[in-house]
Amino acid sequence: MKNFISVNDVSNVTDWVHQAIRVKQDPFAQQHIGRNKTLGLLFLNPSLRTRMSMQKAALNLGMHVMVMNLYHDGWMIEFEDGSVMNQNTQEHIREAAAVISQYCDIVGIRTFPTLEDREKDYADKVIRQFIAHASVPVISLESAILHPLQSFADAITIREHQKKDKPKVVLSWAPHPRALPQAVANSFVEWMAHMDVELVVTNPERFDLAPRFSDQATVVHNQQEAFEDADFIYAKNWSSYEEYGRKAHGLEHWIIDESKMSITNNAYFMHCLPVRRNVVVTDGVIEGPESLVIKQAKNREFAAQTVLINLLENEG
Amino acid sequence: MKNFISVNDVSNVTDWVHQAIRVKQDPFAQQHIGRNKTLGLLFLNPSLRTRMSMQKAALNLGMHVMVMNLYHDGWMIEFEDGSVMNQNTQEHIREAAAVISQYCDIVGIRTFPTLEDREKDYADKVIRQFIAHASVPVISLESAILHPLQSFADAITIREHQKKDKPKVVLSWAPHPRALPQAVANSFVEWMAHMDVELVVTNPERFDLAPRFSDQATVVHNQQEAFEDADFIYAKNWSSYEEYGRKAHGLEHWIIDESKMSITNNAYFMHCLPVRRNVVVTDGVIEGPESLVIKQAKNREFAAQTVLINLLENEG
Amino acid sequence: MKNFISVNDVSNVTDWVHQAIRVKQDPFAQQHIGRNKTLGLLFLNPSLRTRMSMQKAALNLGMHVMVMNLYHDGWMIEFEDGSVMNQNTQEHIREAAAVISQYCDIVGIRTFPTLEDREKDYADKVIRQFIAHASVPVISLESAILHPLQSFADAITIREHQKKDKPKVVLSWAPHPRALPQAVANSFVEWMAHMDVELVVTNPERFDLAPRFSDQATVVHNQQEAFEDADFIYAKNWSSYEEYGRKAHGLEHWIIDESKMSITNNAYFMHCLPVRRNVVVTDGVIEGPESLVIKQAKNREFAAQTVLINLLENEG
Repeated sequence: MKNFISVNDVSNVTDWVHQAIRVKQDPFAQQHIGRNKTLGLLFLNPSLRTRMSMQKAALNLGMHVMVMNLYHDGWMIEFEDGSVMNQNTQEHIREAAAVISQYCDIVGIRTFPTLEDREKDYADKVIRQFIAHASVPVISLESAILHPLQSFADAITIREHQKKDKPKVVLSWAPHPRALPQAVANSFVEWMAHMDVELVVTNPERFDLAPRFSDQATVVHNQQEAFEDADFIYAKNWSSYEEYGRKAHGLEHWIIDESKMSITNNAYFMHCLPVRRNVVVTDGVIEGPESLVIKQAKNREFAAQTVLINLLENEG
Repeated sequence: MKNFISVNDVSNVTDWVHQAIRVKQDPFAQQHIGRNKTLGLLFLNPSLRTRMSMQKAALNLGMHVMVMNLYHDGWMIEFEDGSVMNQNTQEHIREAAAVISQYCDIVGIRTFPTLEDREKDYADKVIRQFIAHASVPVISLESAILHPLQSFADAITIREHQKKDKPKVVLSWAPHPRALPQAVANSFVEWMAHMDVELVVTNPERFDLAPRFSDQATVVHNQQEAFEDADFIYAKNWSSYEEYGRKAHGLEHWIIDESKMSITNNAYFMHCLPVRRNVVVTDGVIEGPESLVIKQAKNREFAAQTVLINLLENEG
Repeated sequence: MKNFISVNDVSNVTDWVHQAIRVKQDPFAQQHIGRNKTLGLLFLNPSLRTRMSMQKAALNLGMHVMVMNLYHDGWMIEFEDGSVMNQNTQEHIREAAAVISQYCDIVGIRTFPTLEDREKDYADKVIRQFIAHASVPVISLESAILHPLQSFADAITIREHQKKDKPKVVLSWAPHPRALPQAVANSFVEWMAHMDVELVVTNPERFDLAPRFSDQATVVHNQQEAFEDADFIYAKNWSSYEEYGRKAHGLEHWIIDESKMSITNNAYFMHCLPVRRNVVVTDGVIEGPESLVIKQAKNREFAAQTVLINLLENEG
């Protein structure tokens, strides 16, 4: 494995999930792996879980960590090749990626989509350009279209809690006051396709994910129907792919509440966080005994640590 | 001790002051205590001394540190239970505190008061909500109404410099161009009440501290009278508690200058910093031989380290 | 050596360059030197290379690092003595420098010039005031007029690549859409004067460096003439010293391109980065086989590490 930007960088999802569960049992067991290794974390957008869990994972392995809010602490980056840089951008990704690579053994980078230019966002240009010009492994801390560290943590959490083989896992669209990326949803579908689960995605008409993702699941536009017999409900808002970046109006009834959860097979509730309470999900559901949201966040640490281990061992 | 948010979390102030003085003599002596322990520091407001001294104290003990400007690096936090989060806040304190707790062994948090809503500020809701939903010990890096790390450092500094039993310690209000919190003053009174000192607070009429604090000291509205025979002058501005958050006008003559210091018993001068020179205190006083402000700041490190030691040992 | 703010703090440039090259061969060989030592890094302005290379260098030596964006994370600093601080500044450099010194074994500070007040900028007041009130060694992470860490890395890079004794090194002014500091250029001249090179500075009329720097080189206003037989071309924009802070207009033809490079003795191309492509230098030159810009940036780490070693060893 050279980089970690999607499930396609993982040799075997089941093996990785088992490895992460072992790491969780004794997080400090492999501190020799990270000795004299440095992880650089570059944030172009806000982050709480990713920022802290990635740092903690690296520290568990004896690594050093350097964190930068790239645009705020450093310079505005140009991603277009051949551009005449006489405007706002101050440094080209070609130099930035090459230079940062030299100070780090692994680099993580987070970027959000524009939600304006679908083609550009779905080319995942920022992270791909970074990789193209970096000389060390790159970890996606969430890209314009994927959030593999989140999905890996979700896979671990489902594996830990599933009560039967091939559980029914439902990814449900939920309301949100702002236009949000599709990254968490895209990634979740992609990872679940490598798990032994029955995956259903439910969302309003015109909020289908990009075909390359929606094709990997059963899509049901009737939320109630989708929830029947579900073992896991994973809630997440995303803006429209079809009418790119459009946020929903008048779909507040897609909120995940107790009555909908009662249709399920006493399903666990999942969300990547941060979550807007009483918009995406009711207080009752997120605080209920079946809510896994805090445990998911804890598993971010072990997902991150497993990725670091695999990148460091590969490198040696 | 589960948390450190006020003097009431300290079993015995005298013992802790002595412990801090021992820590200061050999700060690196207990590096095993912090091994594989991580301190999270969350700033909702600016900080220099607290930010650096807390990090340094943790590093002295072999801990790792993760620092976040929470709102800037992460998300806007909702503190109201039951709210429908369709406005500006992005994550509820219930999730944020629970999640952050999982990546840290101890969490410090700094927040300032609104200075607009007295009831809310004095309920110290931000830090209390954080504690309510955290699963690890919480350290106040200054809350809406208290700054116990500062007062602990002040107690150490007074203990190191007092020339007689039961010195006269005067907390004097001083001018400032902005409306400031009452936290340092409140906390100072609270800690001094556990020391063997004669505590006098002097402030203009209508600038009395909240009764629960002013009741623990002799309050004198005549600054000159208060300064007589003083062994320590502690200068600090605070906005009005009575007319909540109001800043003073026409009280520039409350500045601490050489002529006022000459009334004292050759008193030491103290201030928590940052300080506005020639507004709060003259250059002559703050640079004079009796000024302890730099030494106070140094003791922030050992106050912080002593708090960490007690929290870590308690946990074990 | 007490501080590192200019080449004058270096006992022997040649020895230091050789030491840096040895450090580069085994960066982790001296980890005992930094044990229990803390480096504080204070940024008043943006930084990428300096921020990361300085951290990495300290970590290589086993030091701890604390990083602050001073004005953003902390307080606005007053540098004028005697001022009545009732305006925007919140803490005087006298307290800030003294306090920060107490938490750190070495402090680095970065500041940019105003480009408005030449006398003030060239007095290098920010860093000199910091040093005056600090109690530990201070490293310039770029001051208003000098950037010695950059020039030290440049000297290493030239030493590594020179193909003959006394190579011809040409510092060429280049276009830029904004008014930039003269620090990198000033410093480069100052360091090259201690190297066995033939130094030529070429810049448009009215863009001569300050006499104290331009006097240390041959100044040629004809760029083509300067480039003849050059072994190294070092490109950099700076605003006018003469008409202080003025940026150039109509000088886009000073860009470093392939045709100009063809005049040289197959010269290496150097730039401190960040660089505006196709304004300062063409894509073809910066990506060409003679471009050293990425290697220069790598040498920032070993320049920084050598400075830290010398400061730490001196201290002991």
